[in-house]
Amino acid sequence: MNAESVVNQFFTAVERINIDEAVTYLADDVSYENMPVQPVRGKDEVRNLMSAFLAASTEVEWRVLRQHYVDNVVFNERLDRFKMNGGWLELPVAGVFEINEAGKISLWRDYFDMGTYMDQLTSLMQGE
Amino acid sequence: MNAESVVNQFFTAVERINIDEAVTYLADDVSYENMPVQPVRGKDEVRNLMSAFLAASTEVEWRVLRQHYVDNVVFNERLDRFKMNGGWLELPVAGVFEINEAGKISLWRDYFDMGTYMDQLTSLMQGE
Repeated sequence: MNAESVVNQFFTAVERINIDEAVTYLADDVSYENMPVQPVRGKDEVRNLMSAFLAASTEVEWRVLRQHYVDNVVFNERLDRFKMNGGWLELPVAGVFEINEAGKISLWRDYFDMGTYMDQLTSLMQGE
Repeated sequence: MNAESVVNQFFTAVERINIDEAVTYLADDVSYENMPVQPVRGKDEVRNLMSAFLAASTEVEWRVLRQHYVDNVVFNERLDRFKMNGGWLELPVAGVFEINEAGKISLWRDYFDMGTYMDQLTSLMQGE
C-alpha cells in the first residue's frame, strides 16, 4: 500500500463524515498542522478537532485537484467543501502528508487562507 | 534542465531582488495565483505585482523547506522572509509551479494565510 492510497482512504472516510474510521489512518503521534494556527498533536486531540469542525456539516467533499507522491510524502491541491445550513463552504487547500513505516499518517499539514474560511462560515451560520 | 532547476533559478533571482532577471524565467502568459486573491495573468502584470510587493524589502529569503517535482510540476513548502523597516516578515507558503515546453514557468500558485502576512506587514510598517 503506497502513501497515496493511505491518504485516499483517509479522505474517503472524511467525506463519509466517519471520524471513527478516519482516525484509524492516523499515527498515535500524528501532527495536524493548519498553518494559520497552532499544530495539534496526538490522535485523540486530532479526533476532537475533526469532530468540532465537521459537526456542523451535513455533507463533505474534498475534491483533490492534483496529487503527487514521492516516497512517503504526498502533496495535493484540493477544494475542501462543507455543506452547512443548506449552503456550501469552499476552501482552497494545499496539503502535505507524511506516512510512517506502519502505513499511518504521521504528518497532516494544510496551507489555506483563514479569512476565506471564516468569511464563508459566518455567512452560512447567519443563513445568508 | 528540469522543472525544479527552473524554479530554483527563479527563486535565486527573487532573493537578489532582481526582478528583471526573475521575469526571464516566466512564460509570457504566466498565471500567478495567490490563492486568497484573484490571479494575475501575463508577464508584465506579474512584474508589476512583484515590484510592488518587493518594493519595501531590503532583503528577501525564500527558504525552501521541502521540494519535489514530478514531470513538469514542482511542489514546495517554504518560509518566505522579507526584511522591511529593520524587521523580518515570515510567511509559510505552499507553492505549485508548472513549467512549459520552453522551460518557462507558466503557472505559479501560492497557498498562504493572508492574515499572517497582513498582521506582520502592519506591525513592521508601524515600526513595532
